[in-house]
Amino acid sequence: MKTARYELYYWPYIQGRGEFVRLALEDAGRDYVDVARLPKGGGGGVPALMRLLEGRPMEHPPFAPPLLKVGNLLIAQTANILLFLGPRLGLVPKGEASRIWALQLQLTIADWVVEVHDTHHPISGSLYYEEQKREARRRAADFRAERLPKFLDYFERVLKRDRKGSGYLVGKAISYVDLSLFQMIAGLRYAFPRAMARLERKRSRLVALHDRVSARHRIAAYLASPRRLSFNQQGIFRHYPDLDG
Amino acid sequence: MKTARYELYYWPYIQGRGEFVRLALEDAGRDYVDVARLPKGGGGGVPALMRLLEGRPMEHPPFAPPLLKVGNLLIAQTANILLFLGPRLGLVPKGEASRIWALQLQLTIADWVVEVHDTHHPISGSLYYEEQKREARRRAADFRAERLPKFLDYFERVLKRDRKGSGYLVGKAISYVDLSLFQMIAGLRYAFPRAMARLERKRSRLVALHDRVSARHRIAAYLASPRRLSFNQQGIFRHYPDLDG
Repeated sequence: MKTARYELYYWPYIQGRGEFVRLALEDAGRDYVDVARLPKGGGGGVPALMRLLEGRPMEHPPFAPPLLKVGNLLIAQTANILLFLGPRLGLVPKGEASRIWALQLQLTIADWVVEVHDTHHPISGSLYYEEQKREARRRAADFRAERLPKFLDYFERVLKRDRKGSGYLVGKAISYVDLSLFQMIAGLRYAFPRAMARLERKRSRLVALHDRVSARHRIAAYLASPRRLSFNQQGIFRHYPDLDG
Repeated sequence: MKTARYELYYWPYIQGRGEFVRLALEDAGRDYVDVARLPKGGGGGVPALMRLLEGRPMEHPPFAPPLLKVGNLLIAQTANILLFLGPRLGLVPKGEASRIWALQLQLTIADWVVEVHDTHHPISGSLYYEEQKREARRRAADFRAERLPKFLDYFERVLKRDRKGSGYLVGKAISYVDLSLFQMIAGLRYAFPRAMARLERKRSRLVALHDRVSARHRIAAYLASPRRLSFNQQGIFRHYPDLDG
């Protein structure tokens, strides 16, 4: 697979779920094509993505992006893509128990992502935030008080249990799950700066993990590059002061 | 692994996410222990589950049930458990492409499950339905009009694309994903009888899959046994006439 060409298909204007895949490819220093961010004239743009989602019938039709195309394989679902990429990018230890543990953590992050998204869209993804603002305020209050601390505490506990003190979630070295957890912390800081400033005080291992990941050579270069889209008000992590308490 | 003892840890009063695991074990005719449904005096009940969730520190602490214990392995996250069990129970074809495809579909079902749950709990899992009834009505209306048809159409399309006409989602034989899709149809019929009666008319492949699964020898025996808990108003699928349009 060393010469495989990785093609990512994702919405070109947001980090979204695609960012968890981008971070893995970037940290591994792998060449990849972010297809929908290429010019439309060059076969890119949203039309390239829509062709895969709604085009001709295929063996394994995807439900939603992100999609990773590798040769004849088309893979959807973020955690599934990372399960596939992990061993190929050297971002997960060998051995079934480690792979299961990594996926288990990644799926917990996936659940968390849905809950973050639903703070600003508790009623429907097809309505604007403004059309569900009252409900969003209620859901976000519950998220800040109950769910956010619960998820943060869980990952802090996972880091704490590691007696060898590697500071990573899976085994002794960095894995795709650490990169995804970095993204969660970064996104939550953007969306809920006040709540996070308060909650981070007692979760020092999470903060350390965030800092360690962002200081990695290739990640730092990526974050400073135009390839890293900014957080914005169309993505999963949105900053509405009303929702930050 | 042939003599492995499978221990399922899940809330004893509901089908919930545990049911997707039970259906796989039941269809394969495997002995398993549904630990929290054993008497408390015999080491069962909710306390047995809580010991794993909140007890002594462990290498791979789980975030939430269902949990599967196999020897020294403790696995959480439904799709992760099924990824592990699939090959061991003969419920997924050999080959990486098939395994990826099965997990991709299972993760799409997992997303769907969250959306079903959130129709009756759009604000918070720690509040009663009655405390979020107004929001639930709005969210359920969107679910019935937009999301439910979208998910149903997707799986109908997956079944339709299969030119060999096996009638299964992955390869030529039944897989754990078919069992999970059966559970979705059964649960949605319980929760949204009116919406489903209307929507099923044009999704004949889904209905056929449901019927084929429920007629399987071991599944039929399971469904008729006391091991199959009834759908009820504490699970993922709840019947509130107000939410059924």
